[in-house]
Amino acid sequence: MQTQQRILNAARELIHSRSYADVGVALICDRAQVKKGSFYHFYPSKQELTLAVLDTYFVDMKEQLLDNAFKNDIPPLARLKRMAQMAYEFQKELQKQTGHVLGCPFGNIATELSTQDETIRKKVEHIFTKLQSGIKQVLVQAQEDECIEPFNTEATAEAMLAYFEGIVLLAKTRNDPEIIKQLLPAIADIRII
Amino acid sequence: MQTQQRILNAARELIHSRSYADVGVALICDRAQVKKGSFYHFYPSKQELTLAVLDTYFVDMKEQLLDNAFKNDIPPLARLKRMAQMAYEFQKELQKQTGHVLGCPFGNIATELSTQDETIRKKVEHIFTKLQSGIKQVLVQAQEDECIEPFNTEATAEAMLAYFEGIVLLAKTRNDPEIIKQLLPAIADIRII
Repeated sequence: MQTQQRILNAARELIHSRSYADVGVALICDRAQVKKGSFYHFYPSKQELTLAVLDTYFVDMKEQLLDNAFKNDIPPLARLKRMAQMAYEFQKELQKQTGHVLGCPFGNIATELSTQDETIRKKVEHIFTKLQSGIKQVLVQAQEDECIEPFNTEATAEAMLAYFEGIVLLAKTRNDPEIIKQLLPAIADIRII
Repeated sequence: MQTQQRILNAARELIHSRSYADVGVALICDRAQVKKGSFYHFYPSKQELTLAVLDTYFVDMKEQLLDNAFKNDIPPLARLKRMAQMAYEFQKELQKQTGHVLGCPFGNIATELSTQDETIRKKVEHIFTKLQSGIKQVLVQAQEDECIEPFNTEATAEAMLAYFEGIVLLAKTRNDPEIIKQLLPAIADIRII
């Protein structure tokens, strides 16, 4: 694997399973088996690397949503439940691998750094806005296709994103992925009028 | 003010406005104007202090919920909306003071440390369980007093707690307390059957 990719992969894994502050450049270099000089050749700082890590997570998540959860082979609202099921399987698999429900990589970073690093805060905000817009598209289609009362699709998409983040936060705090399985499908029932 | 109280207050403020990792013992001592020896006399470690900080937050929150939000001068479900309004005012005030929506002190710590510190994870889990049980009591009363379809009060209380945490997380990420004002009152509409 290319050096830069090894650095990215190591940082993704380490930051997700610990925290931003707990993972230093030395640890990332060690895990990626690269020298510090090589690290700084690709990333001038841990902040830069973290922005790149967030990008790779977003690319993966977008792919998962577009190719799987939000695929139009089932009705729109059922797609939101499929997204819930995928989140459950993802966190359950992480727990199997690491012993812990690791939570949402975006929510984790935002919670830890929003008051301390404005660049990273804005990055996660931007990603959340894109995710919200993806959910909104599903809701707009639901309103066209399914027999449901009209509602505010923008605000509902934001409330759904919040519910998603909150459920995953609770599952992380309780180290129990079953909370996601039990409670996240109700995301499809949220309506802001 | 007593030395121990000054340490606690400084730690509360610093950890809430930054993060656990970003706040060292030296900084807490500096803010509290105490010597390191004095710090370690009261708290053998930053972990011990953090457990005490979480306790003080929980005492405050319980007081706020019992004496204000959940007071039985209005119908049960309206109390949940009053809790939402109080959360909005709290985060708005913090933003005014610090420039940032600081988020939930419990959710922040849980997100940052759940995979790294089992003692702290369990502490927040315990606090969440108590908060959930407080919400459940309101729901049980709602089912007795108000004309609403039967639902699972335990699971609904957990979903409401998650929604609360998710909305506050989003408000922190966007540094915008108005999200809480707009979206958190819908907490009263969540139902898990």
